Amino acid sequence: MSKETRSLSKLVLSIAPSQTLEITAMAKQMRADGLDVIGFAAGEPDFDTPQNIKDAAIRAIQMGFTKYTPAAGTNQLREAVAHSLKERHDLDYKPEQIIVSNGAKHSLFNTFQTILNFYDEVLIMRPYWLSYPELVKLAGGMPVYVDVYQENNFEPRPEDIERMITDRTKAIIVNNPSNPCGTTYKEETLKAIADIAIRHDLFIISDEIYGDLVYDGKSHNSIAHFSHNVYDHTIVINGLSKSYAMTGWRIGYSACIPEIAKHMASLQSHAASNACSIAQYAAVEALTGPQDDLYRMRDEFDRRRKEMVKLLREIPGVTCAMPEGAFYVMMNIREFKGKSFNGRVIHNSKDFTQLLLESAMVAVVPGSAFGGDDFVRLSYATSMDNIKTGLERIRKFCMSLEDGKPMYMQP
Amino acid sequence: MSKETRSLSKLVLSIAPSQTLEITAMAKQMRADGLDVIGFAAGEPDFDTPQNIKDAAIRAIQMGFTKYTPAAGTNQLREAVAHSLKERHDLDYKPEQIIVSNGAKHSLFNTFQTILNFYDEVLIMRPYWLSYPELVKLAGGMPVYVDVYQENNFEPRPEDIERMITDRTKAIIVNNPSNPCGTTYKEETLKAIADIAIRHDLFIISDEIYGDLVYDGKSHNSIAHFSHNVYDHTIVINGLSKSYAMTGWRIGYSACIPEIAKHMASLQSHAASNACSIAQYAAVEALTGPQDDLYRMRDEFDRRRKEMVKLLREIPGVTCAMPEGAFYVMMNIREFKGKSFNGRVIHNSKDFTQLLLESAMVAVVPGSAFGGDDFVRLSYATSMDNIKTGLERIRKFCMSLEDGKPMYMQP
Repeated sequence: MSKETRSLSKLVLSIAPSQTLEITAMAKQMRADGLDVIGFAAGEPDFDTPQNIKDAAIRAIQMGFTKYTPAAGTNQLREAVAHSLKERHDLDYKPEQIIVSNGAKHSLFNTFQTILNFYDEVLIMRPYWLSYPELVKLAGGMPVYVDVYQENNFEPRPEDIERMITDRTKAIIVNNPSNPCGTTYKEETLKAIADIAIRHDLFIISDEIYGDLVYDGKSHNSIAHFSHNVYDHTIVINGLSKSYAMTGWRIGYSACIPEIAKHMASLQSHAASNACSIAQYAAVEALTGPQDDLYRMRDEFDRRRKEMVKLLREIPGVTCAMPEGAFYVMMNIREFKGKSFNGRVIHNSKDFTQLLLESAMVAVVPGSAFGGDDFVRLSYATSMDNIKTGLERIRKFCMSLEDGKPMYMQP
Repeated sequence: MSKETRSLSKLVLSIAPSQTLEITAMAKQMRADGLDVIGFAAGEPDFDTPQNIKDAAIRAIQMGFTKYTPAAGTNQLREAVAHSLKERHDLDYKPEQIIVSNGAKHSLFNTFQTILNFYDEVLIMRPYWLSYPELVKLAGGMPVYVDVYQENNFEPRPEDIERMITDRTKAIIVNNPSNPCGTTYKEETLKAIADIAIRHDLFIISDEIYGDLVYDGKSHNSIAHFSHNVYDHTIVINGLSKSYAMTGWRIGYSACIPEIAKHMASLQSHAASNACSIAQYAAVEALTGPQDDLYRMRDEFDRRRKEMVKLLREIPGVTCAMPEGAFYVMMNIREFKGKSFNGRVIHNSKDFTQLLLESAMVAVVPGSAFGGDDFVRLSYATSMDNIKTGLERIRKFCMSLEDGKPMYMQP
């Protein structure tokens, strides 16, 4: 381990270990110790995978569909994805423009590996999904942040985007609906972003993994639909994890122009090969079979969303925007900074999260993990009972906070 | 698509598209046209996944084991892998030293991404498995080749390795048993490589994916077992695809010192997350359940191996080394270069492969795909009937070749 050449990859060494690990480990230990911890931290549906999808997977196993598939996915699945993109979002892709990967995260990784060179800059709205900056860095790129604000329902202002563009800007990530903010972008916001991307010749990485989970009767629009030019600049990322409660199966995909798809397929053929054949077979059933379970789960998420927001807003000092998609609420905890619990002062979202877990036995994710320290993120992908009990605990915790009594004053 | 910054990743653009694609596509088209093509090109067992493994997967689906697992794999699987490495190869790894990925190819990708920096050199025995050079290049590294020879049963000579080492050499790949050559390394060869690696402080990437498929009553030895120092320098790569006929399931793993495992886990947590949860559950059954099917398949491969080699050696002009592991034979076609078929001259292994497919309807892989143009690779992961019929076709084809009659002479 001595020689300089034994040093590990600078890129891999540069990525941040997950900030949520410590909290998750603590919550897990508390549960193992028999404590009744309520979890709002999970990023996955609490529902089981729908039965028709499970049945299809069992058929695949029984018939021996357990061999290599083409690295970019089976023809059947790529056709099903193309058909779904046309049906749901009026986007025209041929099967060969679809690359199926080991989850949407893997699709994003392949995307950045394929389009970025060293020091290319990628615009990311902040608060962001925590893997975006690391995915960009792993491809040698530089994350550049565009702050978005609760007052604006976490939608970016076009002028804030323009201001961050340099000669090195290569791409912009549009996560719509967004994690952690739950924002669904207004048509005019998407249009403004598309115009900027065209004007500056940027790739648009359109992460639409929560596209089926939008509420209030809205329908999801993909930024790729504005024009041929925008379509050419866009790489759509999606997958089945969130919509079909299939997080463990690992099926994600990208859709883009053939020139890029070709290189992504080549990359994946050497780097990982196909996603699990059984999961691919199940994914065809998910996309082409009955969609009742998708709507049932979405409607249940909707009820929980309203309940969680109502209960959050009843807590004195708490504000939150109404999320319109995904299954997260950003609880604004700015008012509690500087306050204390049993003499321990809350300096930041991590302190708040830790004290909440220790004293009220509720697990949330500190906003610092997403670059938004005024917040903690709550997932409503859990039962209505948990939401009611957990929010009552949070309410009591917040009301018990006292004005901070720092042990000493700075001179 | 105009601006310079829109150019795609230089690394991804640098990798070679698969040389086998054209041949595979042609064979597929011929089959679709109803022609009786015999395939020796496949890199996967023709057996079905054993029933106990399939049953376990079905149980996983039924019980809803369909959620995210830890990114580096379930504790159960990492424990089963650690136990298997101890039982089978007397290697001591703790579960946290095991990273489970989407197939062994993905484990290799993660390994090179984690250990390489730009311009680091990696030694690769040639003929090589075709993804090694591309995996190295994708991590910014430079493949450096050490030629191995049929006369020496495709084992490297230590002096040939030493000669290629520079200040930039960072790692050496040891693929034992090897694809495409079927070589199982002698103990003294492994020891010599280990000594060189220690002396020059190189990582040893020990790809043991065919470790369970060795014949003649031999047992597989991992290079990692020589000493603590060698163990510290080694990253063992393995998986379940080849041994358990689980190619489509995508379960591979790496085993190495904790410092590297930690960074690989971090990389994978951002880049792809866990391998399919159902496949992981099935993999535990594969490693810990009854091993009868593994031995049954190995014994059947052994019978086919002997038959294929016998029939190959009966063809005038053909030589081949007796493979001792994996399920490939390298058929030496040097004698046929310059000969012709229906007036078409065979210049290289690709010409030979193409003419063989077109005229004799037998699919093989040209050695040029592996950096060994004097060969074509035949897989015996197919039925005894196919082997007999296919080899008879190859024999007739070879015997029909005429001395080359070039259409024109260079002045």
